[in-house]
Amino acid sequence: MNYLARQKKLADRMRLFGLDGMLVTHLPNVRYLCGFTGSSGYLAIRAGASSLKAVFCSDGRYVVQAKEEVEGAKIVISRKPALLEACQWVTRSGIRVLGFEAEHLSYEIYRHLVRTFRGHTRLKPATGLIEQLRTTKDPEEIEQMRAAALLGASLFPTALATIAAGVPEAVVAGEMELQARRAGAEKMSFGTIVAAGVRSALPHGTASSHAIPDSGFVILDYGVILAGYCSDMTRTVHLGRAPAARRRMYKAVLEAQLASVAAVGPGVETGAVDKAGRQVLKKAGFEAYFTHSTGHGVGMEVHEPPRLARGQKQKLEPGMVVTVEPGIYIPGQGGVRIEDMVLVTETGKEILTPTSRDLIELEPESLRPS
Amino acid sequence: MNYLARQKKLADRMRLFGLDGMLVTHLPNVRYLCGFTGSSGYLAIRAGASSLKAVFCSDGRYVVQAKEEVEGAKIVISRKPALLEACQWVTRSGIRVLGFEAEHLSYEIYRHLVRTFRGHTRLKPATGLIEQLRTTKDPEEIEQMRAAALLGASLFPTALATIAAGVPEAVVAGEMELQARRAGAEKMSFGTIVAAGVRSALPHGTASSHAIPDSGFVILDYGVILAGYCSDMTRTVHLGRAPAARRRMYKAVLEAQLASVAAVGPGVETGAVDKAGRQVLKKAGFEAYFTHSTGHGVGMEVHEPPRLARGQKQKLEPGMVVTVEPGIYIPGQGGVRIEDMVLVTETGKEILTPTSRDLIELEPESLRPS
Repeated sequence: MNYLARQKKLADRMRLFGLDGMLVTHLPNVRYLCGFTGSSGYLAIRAGASSLKAVFCSDGRYVVQAKEEVEGAKIVISRKPALLEACQWVTRSGIRVLGFEAEHLSYEIYRHLVRTFRGHTRLKPATGLIEQLRTTKDPEEIEQMRAAALLGASLFPTALATIAAGVPEAVVAGEMELQARRAGAEKMSFGTIVAAGVRSALPHGTASSHAIPDSGFVILDYGVILAGYCSDMTRTVHLGRAPAARRRMYKAVLEAQLASVAAVGPGVETGAVDKAGRQVLKKAGFEAYFTHSTGHGVGMEVHEPPRLARGQKQKLEPGMVVTVEPGIYIPGQGGVRIEDMVLVTETGKEILTPTSRDLIELEPESLRPS
Repeated sequence: MNYLARQKKLADRMRLFGLDGMLVTHLPNVRYLCGFTGSSGYLAIRAGASSLKAVFCSDGRYVVQAKEEVEGAKIVISRKPALLEACQWVTRSGIRVLGFEAEHLSYEIYRHLVRTFRGHTRLKPATGLIEQLRTTKDPEEIEQMRAAALLGASLFPTALATIAAGVPEAVVAGEMELQARRAGAEKMSFGTIVAAGVRSALPHGTASSHAIPDSGFVILDYGVILAGYCSDMTRTVHLGRAPAARRRMYKAVLEAQLASVAAVGPGVETGAVDKAGRQVLKKAGFEAYFTHSTGHGVGMEVHEPPRLARGQKQKLEPGMVVTVEPGIYIPGQGGVRIEDMVLVTETGKEILTPTSRDLIELEPESLRPS
């Protein structure tokens, strides 16, 4: 990854916002800008009129790891608290206006910074500055995301082989997660959702100890982290033969998803992607059951800007990777959601998740040897 | 759980600190005080001279779940943002001084609150107020923690059966996690650590794709969440017969751990527990390799107050559950850590983790059918 190029882009933005320094505390942003993957570290950047300097501060646990990973910043590891070390560098560097990540920094740490700088350096909230940079992925990142999406998709057959009446949802999740680990994933990108039967009507039905019933929808929504990049996909299968009413539900969501995916392209407002699918569900009479937004950016975090939601005006740009995931949820009955990762390209889009979206009906009885 | 009793205890503390209201935003604290387990919700509490009122605000996703779970607070779910709803209740309730969780609330949300209250309600940081309440567990919580500790311990044989030369650390973690899911765990309480060979010298060696070498230490540090309560334990095994130098390392850590556990009791300073083990390692010549503190509280979060570290003056109280986990780490060679969960009782202590601490030497070749 070209960390210095990223820091330079950030420096340009900092100058636009009147910041000659930036304190980066949110770990995914630290990783994005200098490569550090550990659990504690701070990056401070000074952007002069034409110069750029950066320091990375951490503690004794990360001596070796910081040396191996950090690029584009001087590494400082001392016995002092790493945040204090970073602040002292800011002071020594003569930074007058220091941007900070107001949406990630706690009020307590903010007060601590104010006391540390005693007025010599002015703190200025710089919400979303780095996140906005991260929305458009560079070619290396796109390759990583492609690999993460494929690894995620490769777990779907494990799910199909495990789902059976009587099996706890959590065991399906566990088998998928073990397979992810075998395939080299760092970890899952969020708590695996396996929501079966009436639980499929819960948009956030994290895999529970409930046993899968002998008929009904099963929503599988999950992702992996591979080399720092997240995948995110959803498929809904049906246990047993789906009655006509459920086929209508599935068809409506599938057509909505296809319509929203079709709408994705450079220059398109994210709200228009949301609208394309929502209209399909409206025509099919399911609009009231689509209770969330259509999607979100995905990258080093599983939820990133932009939001694909009603009325959003932000325009899609080449290099953005977004999810498209309409769903309908009928309380007491069940739900369907279909989600893909879609890369915005110069000319249109590319779907990164290869898994078929056709309705799969599974035998309710386990055919596997016990 | 007796949520109202917990709220009453909090109200007593609030009065001591001059707060007539408290805004609870940190989800483990929300769960502790009213039972909500979802991913988005706010609890506001008004503590008058003798009265106590509470409101829980969330969004449409949690209509059913909030009704099922929340006790001791009026549930408000509206189309307005839940935080705004909570703030408006604060205003209507005539709260003048509102405590907030300064260590958990972002600066951005803090500014939003300031603008919302426009000076009618004064915001006052109330760092650690609820965490301090949570340090001493009530009898129901102790039963939950006992169950979580036993479930966690039950995964150890799975680890032993999976560890073999050539198996990736991550696969050992995956098998343990699958077993945790089978046994009914909600999820793991933190990223499972499986650190083999030279990686055992990393105190935070999260399971990686590295293959386990054919000899050396393997550190297993992991925990589960069961019904909201975390377990946390560490055992170190040796692949192949341990040479004398490694046996000395293991023996030193074991004796240090026994000494620190022996020191645990009501009224004892947490720093004294740290010192007891550290002195053993000093005598054995390993002090420089014990690079972290001895332990921490554990409960609804895997890291809670109190800290068991050098010089800490906080006194242990009956009902506290703490980890005792000395370790030594020799860069380029390997490391050993042994950790148990220890409950402080009226008369002494009780170790909640039942697993033997004797050194286990495993056959390096896998004996399992492939």
